[in-house]
Amino acid sequence: MKGLPSVEKAILALSRFPGVGRKSAQRMVHFLLRGDGAAIEQLVHALESLRQSVGYCVDCHNLAEGERCWVCLDPGRNKSLLCVLEAPADLMAMERAGVFRGRYHVLGGRLSPLDGIGPEQLHLDSLKSRLQEGSIQEVVIATNPTVEGEATAHYVAQMSQPWVTRVTRLAYGLPMGGELEYLDESTLYQAMQGRRQF
Amino acid sequence: MKGLPSVEKAILALSRFPGVGRKSAQRMVHFLLRGDGAAIEQLVHALESLRQSVGYCVDCHNLAEGERCWVCLDPGRNKSLLCVLEAPADLMAMERAGVFRGRYHVLGGRLSPLDGIGPEQLHLDSLKSRLQEGSIQEVVIATNPTVEGEATAHYVAQMSQPWVTRVTRLAYGLPMGGELEYLDESTLYQAMQGRRQF
Repeated sequence: MKGLPSVEKAILALSRFPGVGRKSAQRMVHFLLRGDGAAIEQLVHALESLRQSVGYCVDCHNLAEGERCWVCLDPGRNKSLLCVLEAPADLMAMERAGVFRGRYHVLGGRLSPLDGIGPEQLHLDSLKSRLQEGSIQEVVIATNPTVEGEATAHYVAQMSQPWVTRVTRLAYGLPMGGELEYLDESTLYQAMQGRRQF
Repeated sequence: MKGLPSVEKAILALSRFPGVGRKSAQRMVHFLLRGDGAAIEQLVHALESLRQSVGYCVDCHNLAEGERCWVCLDPGRNKSLLCVLEAPADLMAMERAGVFRGRYHVLGGRLSPLDGIGPEQLHLDSLKSRLQEGSIQEVVIATNPTVEGEATAHYVAQMSQPWVTRVTRLAYGLPMGGELEYLDESTLYQAMQGRRQF
């Protein structure tokens, strides 16, 4: 922004957020500059503490403040069930839904050879160790329904098969509340393939 | 967020931004936590420099890095024209459009008795001093087209009248690219009232 290099810098930094364009970033900066700077101070404080306190769980690679995350520390979790997913954000979504009472394993990404992400870049070694340990009976694969997520799912499935009784994956089909009219063909295809006895 | 107080704090801080809900703030935090923390560092740096470098122009109350803003420092500006507006964000919009070559006066808000904002809370004293100084011939009022913006416009107009030759305000009417079908009645009313010879 002309004559305001620091404002311009802040706009650029904020517009790096996913879903935040230049216009929203500008509005954010104006919001921060309103008042006495308390908003900036609060945000800086929150960011500093984010940087200092948040790391990754040594067992499942979920976000953690401390050595292990709250899921791994919870003694009420079913240790025979392991849900494998791509990122901590996916885990949070799962926890919000409250539909899984086992434990998780966060891969830290998906296989994507074009971006240079092969098996070595994901947390697959530690997954193997957990499987070898012997108490896991079912692996529930919950990678994203994308081409790369699929490839990753297949890889994880093959890897898990020798060690567990069941390898499953989340069902594909109609999202609740959606309308058929607006659904893409491949979702409809999956919904048709996966149809169940009424 | 359960088990992650720092993450929760960051989500709260980010969701204070206008237009940012809890979900977007969560996505932002996940974005920040991806990688090695460089994104957090960059943002903290930008915010610190925003807090330290950006203040207000002593003449017009626009944002400024230094004593005066880039508009007031520009010798090419027409000093007989003064555009009065509510906030620095409005000034930026004006500058982006590039439709005004005079100088500005930022009120720092609008009259809003219910929120305890009376004339004393706005930069009206300094406006008066600038008017009394004698070189301003036209005051262009560009407060927002809201009830409170209107009230503020009337107040500023009355205050300016004795000191200048002309007090004008931005035209009301159809926004370019908009469709009549979707316009509210008061805009259509203004457009009709302000109709011009073709």
